[in-house]
Amino acid sequence: MKLSVNQIQEYNNENIQTHQKEFDFLAEKLIKKGIDVAGIIEKLENFNVAIPSWALGAGGTRFGRFSYGGEPATLEDKIDDIGILNILTKSAGAISLHIPWDIPNDYNAIKEKASDHNIIFDSVNSNTFQDQLHSKHSYKFGSLCNIHKEIREQAIQHNFEVINIGEKLGSKSLTVWLSDGSNFPGQNNFQTVLNNTAESLKKIYRHMPNSWKLYIEYKPYEPNFYSTVIQDWGTSFMLAQECGERAYTLVDLGHHLPNTNIEQIVATLMNKGKLGGFHFNDSKYGDDDLTVGSVKPYALFLIFNELVYGMNTNKNNPVPAWMIDASHNIKDPLEDLLQSLEAILIAYAQALLIDQKQLEKNQYKNDVAICQEILQDAFRTDVRPLIRQARLNTNGALNPLEAFKIFKIRDYLIKERGLKSKASGL
Amino acid sequence: MKLSVNQIQEYNNENIQTHQKEFDFLAEKLIKKGIDVAGIIEKLENFNVAIPSWALGAGGTRFGRFSYGGEPATLEDKIDDIGILNILTKSAGAISLHIPWDIPNDYNAIKEKASDHNIIFDSVNSNTFQDQLHSKHSYKFGSLCNIHKEIREQAIQHNFEVINIGEKLGSKSLTVWLSDGSNFPGQNNFQTVLNNTAESLKKIYRHMPNSWKLYIEYKPYEPNFYSTVIQDWGTSFMLAQECGERAYTLVDLGHHLPNTNIEQIVATLMNKGKLGGFHFNDSKYGDDDLTVGSVKPYALFLIFNELVYGMNTNKNNPVPAWMIDASHNIKDPLEDLLQSLEAILIAYAQALLIDQKQLEKNQYKNDVAICQEILQDAFRTDVRPLIRQARLNTNGALNPLEAFKIFKIRDYLIKERGLKSKASGL
Amino acid sequence: MKLSVNQIQEYNNENIQTHQKEFDFLAEKLIKKGIDVAGIIEKLENFNVAIPSWALGAGGTRFGRFSYGGEPATLEDKIDDIGILNILTKSAGAISLHIPWDIPNDYNAIKEKASDHNIIFDSVNSNTFQDQLHSKHSYKFGSLCNIHKEIREQAIQHNFEVINIGEKLGSKSLTVWLSDGSNFPGQNNFQTVLNNTAESLKKIYRHMPNSWKLYIEYKPYEPNFYSTVIQDWGTSFMLAQECGERAYTLVDLGHHLPNTNIEQIVATLMNKGKLGGFHFNDSKYGDDDLTVGSVKPYALFLIFNELVYGMNTNKNNPVPAWMIDASHNIKDPLEDLLQSLEAILIAYAQALLIDQKQLEKNQYKNDVAICQEILQDAFRTDVRPLIRQARLNTNGALNPLEAFKIFKIRDYLIKERGLKSKASGL
Amino acid sequence: MKLSVNQIQEYNNENIQTHQKEFDFLAEKLIKKGIDVAGIIEKLENFNVAIPSWALGAGGTRFGRFSYGGEPATLEDKIDDIGILNILTKSAGAISLHIPWDIPNDYNAIKEKASDHNIIFDSVNSNTFQDQLHSKHSYKFGSLCNIHKEIREQAIQHNFEVINIGEKLGSKSLTVWLSDGSNFPGQNNFQTVLNNTAESLKKIYRHMPNSWKLYIEYKPYEPNFYSTVIQDWGTSFMLAQECGERAYTLVDLGHHLPNTNIEQIVATLMNKGKLGGFHFNDSKYGDDDLTVGSVKPYALFLIFNELVYGMNTNKNNPVPAWMIDASHNIKDPLEDLLQSLEAILIAYAQALLIDQKQLEKNQYKNDVAICQEILQDAFRTDVRPLIRQARLNTNGALNPLEAFKIFKIRDYLIKERGLKSKASGL
Repeated sequence: MKLSVNQIQEYNNENIQTHQKEFDFLAEKLIKKGIDVAGIIEKLENFNVAIPSWALGAGGTRFGRFSYGGEPATLEDKIDDIGILNILTKSAGAISLHIPWDIPNDYNAIKEKASDHNIIFDSVNSNTFQDQLHSKHSYKFGSLCNIHKEIREQAIQHNFEVINIGEKLGSKSLTVWLSDGSNFPGQNNFQTVLNNTAESLKKIYRHMPNSWKLYIEYKPYEPNFYSTVIQDWGTSFMLAQECGERAYTLVDLGHHLPNTNIEQIVATLMNKGKLGGFHFNDSKYGDDDLTVGSVKPYALFLIFNELVYGMNTNKNNPVPAWMIDASHNIKDPLEDLLQSLEAILIAYAQALLIDQKQLEKNQYKNDVAICQEILQDAFRTDVRPLIRQARLNTNGALNPLEAFKIFKIRDYLIKERGLKSKASGL
Repeated sequence: MKLSVNQIQEYNNENIQTHQKEFDFLAEKLIKKGIDVAGIIEKLENFNVAIPSWALGAGGTRFGRFSYGGEPATLEDKIDDIGILNILTKSAGAISLHIPWDIPNDYNAIKEKASDHNIIFDSVNSNTFQDQLHSKHSYKFGSLCNIHKEIREQAIQHNFEVINIGEKLGSKSLTVWLSDGSNFPGQNNFQTVLNNTAESLKKIYRHMPNSWKLYIEYKPYEPNFYSTVIQDWGTSFMLAQECGERAYTLVDLGHHLPNTNIEQIVATLMNKGKLGGFHFNDSKYGDDDLTVGSVKPYALFLIFNELVYGMNTNKNNPVPAWMIDASHNIKDPLEDLLQSLEAILIAYAQALLIDQKQLEKNQYKNDVAICQEILQDAFRTDVRPLIRQARLNTNGALNPLEAFKIFKIRDYLIKERGLKSKASGL
Repeated sequence: MKLSVNQIQEYNNENIQTHQKEFDFLAEKLIKKGIDVAGIIEKLENFNVAIPSWALGAGGTRFGRFSYGGEPATLEDKIDDIGILNILTKSAGAISLHIPWDIPNDYNAIKEKASDHNIIFDSVNSNTFQDQLHSKHSYKFGSLCNIHKEIREQAIQHNFEVINIGEKLGSKSLTVWLSDGSNFPGQNNFQTVLNNTAESLKKIYRHMPNSWKLYIEYKPYEPNFYSTVIQDWGTSFMLAQECGERAYTLVDLGHHLPNTNIEQIVATLMNKGKLGGFHFNDSKYGDDDLTVGSVKPYALFLIFNELVYGMNTNKNNPVPAWMIDASHNIKDPLEDLLQSLEAILIAYAQALLIDQKQLEKNQYKNDVAICQEILQDAFRTDVRPLIRQARLNTNGALNPLEAFKIFKIRDYLIKERGLKSKASGL
Repeated sequence: MKLSVNQIQEYNNENIQTHQKEFDFLAEKLIKKGIDVAGIIEKLENFNVAIPSWALGAGGTRFGRFSYGGEPATLEDKIDDIGILNILTKSAGAISLHIPWDIPNDYNAIKEKASDHNIIFDSVNSNTFQDQLHSKHSYKFGSLCNIHKEIREQAIQHNFEVINIGEKLGSKSLTVWLSDGSNFPGQNNFQTVLNNTAESLKKIYRHMPNSWKLYIEYKPYEPNFYSTVIQDWGTSFMLAQECGERAYTLVDLGHHLPNTNIEQIVATLMNKGKLGGFHFNDSKYGDDDLTVGSVKPYALFLIFNELVYGMNTNKNNPVPAWMIDASHNIKDPLEDLLQSLEAILIAYAQALLIDQKQLEKNQYKNDVAICQEILQDAFRTDVRPLIRQARLNTNGALNPLEAFKIFKIRDYLIKERGLKSKASGL
């Protein structure tokens, strides 16, 4: 199914008056405070987050998986799903492919379909945490870190193949997440697996086209429960430095130990020009992969404060590759992603409201209470009218989730695809 | 120093027009959605949080303490400080005394002073985690749990004395926080110290006047770092049940292990009619005792959702005794408390906005996305105009922190009390 | 395949001299200190841990599963596997069935096979965290807690069926682990789901034969990542009290928030006579389900200290139902279980060495350093000769893991069952 | 008071026979397994841990401090206390001074006293986390990171002074622990404070004599509860690299977020030649500063495994500066330190038992169970006879804690110094 711009305009017309009133009131108030409302809205219009090809099906846990109807069974279906997200929100204009789950059969057809939806191909992701049918060696005991050279080589070759596929589609970067690690003390020699990983990454880095970037993800645990080779930002940063200029650290919000100050990590990496990618989700306990902003919206806002500051300040740091990396165990994945996109834009808009000059001035005066007030004033502002206006300007839906429900999109998808279609991937 | 109602009115007049415009806009919008705005404002007007007598001086850590000028050196000064908070916010109309730090010399004078500030005496707190000058036995190895009967007796007698003081002032409840525990495996016999604690608490409970309530606080660690006798809500609840009907559990937000779902504990306790007291603060790592709402405002909102729901639903549960229990290591304590009071009212107002009927209906339909939308719609609403209106109605200041700054209250206090006055307490 | 006693004796004969020398040396030393070595060995001989029917296949994570050869594909195979564990260790003489994964086809045949291996049927486990083929209602949004009565009823009926199966096999208890909970704030009404769960459990309790016990497990998170209805021991204890005398709390080592003092929970539950079951495993981050003793052996020892003390002191508390509940993602499950059984016996033996009288005396003197010395002296003792002696006395293998390797048991199993057999279950 | 070698020999003579029997039995067993027992004992004899000058008095928490008798009130007293530790254990032959708490009055006298006790001056520690009497600027809002240049300068000058004092005493390194950070979001600009800290550290580094090393400590939180500038090993490592070759990271066991894999951090730092210093203690919740090995002895062993491996493998990494950094809130500090020294030597001896070749071989075979067995066989061995033998060889006491008690050392110290002497420092 494909939504038309007309449908959306019709829906918007029902709500436009209320919106206009709320927007005008807020804009007036903000402009009076000296805030560049038009500039903020332009930034919101231009913000795009990639959707990973594996996030459109039902997620699960080791205890099982509850399916729902109308899952996208093919890469084509997945691109259509992202097309729905994008036409509603105008902020989901990119797909991040996971290989080998989503290797295109017909590259031209796939590129055309994506182009029809105004979707570009963002970073490609390799997978060496599972064994593939017909693969010679198993990654049970590690891939790029493996003590056995032939297994490392197989994993390196897989990354070469992923780069190759990405080139055909117009991707410009490779994301490497390694689950490599150990479940028990003694299983791995920490120094050996670290050295092996460094060597493997360097080979992959050297194989990339000159215009490409390498994003190195980190994670403290799961699926290994004693150690993970790239366990924290420090290890990723060290490896990125060893690889070269176009290697960067990728931050996934859920990949941290309890109580980690993630916004400080973001600031440090941007200070060094090494924040390459950013994966959004939310969590209460571990890598829970919940809807963005559903548990800790203030932490998300504080992170966006650092991102906004860094994008203005650290010119050597590229604009990070944004992606939503969540798991949809309970909710309809499309509804979940719509909520995530909304939460991201809200946090971004709030961060853009912060008066950085006043903040700096009060930091200089050590007026801690006022510094907090400045941040919280931005966070407490109801910025939803700004986001709606940005969407209105770009022909998106005023309230995408509401539109999704009113248009009964899931019902259409079930009709098209049936109740038992199943997405490839996890 | 004492603020006058006139001063505050003058300050309000400067800002009244902007406020009125914002309030009218918000009220209209909410009323259109069927929300009882007047009812919410009435609830906000009636909400009062106790200020503990020990929270008005500079706090510190084991690594030291940085003082500031104009600290309240006497109980009289402390009541004056709370008077300032109360006249500005109209929501700090109670003091919670800590004995022996703040034993009144002249009860009538103290009561009169409090009454002048419209301040009542809330729950009284005993202290058996420190040794007092001239006390016979040390609490180094525990108080109510102590393996030595004479030490337990001394601690019980101290609680009797605290009740006695409270009665003279009009308090109606006793709060017992025990640091009792151990630093090393083997130091305590868990079963013995638990049984001792139960016996001691029962004696204290039986000594209380019939109109009094007993609040039993819990905490997982600090100042003991291996075990704490009352380590969690389950232990407190069990002990409260053993004591009797007027014994309750007291929840302090900072007293939980990482990632604890506190709102669920609140719901469980209210379901059983056993939530007696509630201590506000915020934290990122442990019992950090930071300004309320400064780190996890959404968690605070979710807790208030349960509190509001419980106050409506669980008629057998008394209205909890609210108190701010924070430590002011860096900020001016009065500024810190003003920010805390604001954050509490914001979370309360947001929780009052939740459409409980719609929520229940969508829970019944398992529409998880809409359930989340209902909560987040309330949270994302900028409720500050409602709080300002409630304060306006009761002659408080529109923006208490701003007023505090404009009136240069700290400067006056330094002039009055000097730069080196020091509060009793921690 | 089935091991013979002769094979084991032959293996033991190779190592008996070294063992005898080490045992004699240790026994002499311990007896000199006044320790009842014979009594300890008798206790070790009598200690039996149940093996769950689902733990004999390869485990996995949401990221995948790596299989190995010779997995037990039927309940008969599983009982044979436990038979191997039991003849080697003489401490694995029980199986805990998981329904519906392991419903017997022929009850008599199954009972006979178990009896041949000297294996009894321990607690039976219900499963309402997954949907079963042909079941009418889904547990996606909860089972015993579900807001919809018909779904609760289906889950209750399933528990009735599990009891029925257990009765036929000679089981005497039902273990209920509920994954019921929510992934997002607002999804559940905490009070409603708690009340529903209480009502459902009471119905199950009342349906049990009078000789049966009910074990209520708790867990803070996973597979739900915002809330779990029975999130901690306090909730389980409260529910067990509401059900009745034969309802108990079950402690699983991995089901706790970071840094929880589990040994204190054990002591509290035994003090109240409410510790019913105990699941062994180990973990570093969450419910990692690693080999017992592989990460935190000292914590295991401290827990055994409380178990030993409680079994001596709290006569109203039944002997807990012991079970290993781990996941074998990387290791051969049989090797993993042999290591777990060894670690359990080591911790048990060390705990039995503790001089409780000296400990109590030094607790009374507040000699914290000596209290610690008493525990650590027991822990630092190499008790392996005691365990070997206990096994020798009962015709088990001196070193079960070594014997397993020497006998090439896995090779035989692969020959028998093939490389691609797959266990039912997770 | 000063212990004599004769006293100790007399005490040893009482226990020598039992020891000799146990040692011979163990040595024979180990030698049969191919272990170089003599080599291990030599390593144990040569192992020395520095005692910090601030760890000899009673520690406390923000809730108070319980004193004990005979505290060392002067630097001379403190050196005497370490002298007692050293003559008993022969492994405490170094003191680490904390400035300004322990500035010598008479350098020659102090050096002579230390020399009498065979104590050398290890790394010197600066303190910019507290304000000193008469200091011009306050560190309330940071020291080396401070936004105000004059405050940074004061802190830098203080470090210069500490280096100067260290040079006079023969120290060869400076340890910098910064509490610098913030309590609230917005208080600090992360990038600014990081840059300031880097500049300040570089100035200090350049000021050091060429033979000196700089150790940069990290810590996630406390005394600041929102952010700490040097929050983790990654930040410390990055700063050390920016400073130069003789700048290193210092690991303190208690300075990590919950569940951190510390042994992997140790391995990574040694791999890069950047592990400079190591502070021992133990903890269950946060920076609890408990007796070494009292809570997680297996984790300590795993760390020592990496240290032993690194000292053999990473020749570019210097031997780390060992120090005990604990707080003695409940125990007699000298007893506490004796227990810590014992736990350190036990973990070291166990790590030395590991058969690295067998481990590597089984890692290559992916025999995870056997890898675990190799580590646990070493850990389960009762190595205390080896440690006693090492002490016997160097005229130390067989069991230092027992000797301390038998000699009634605390009683003598109380007689000498009185009940109310108080150590400088925290």
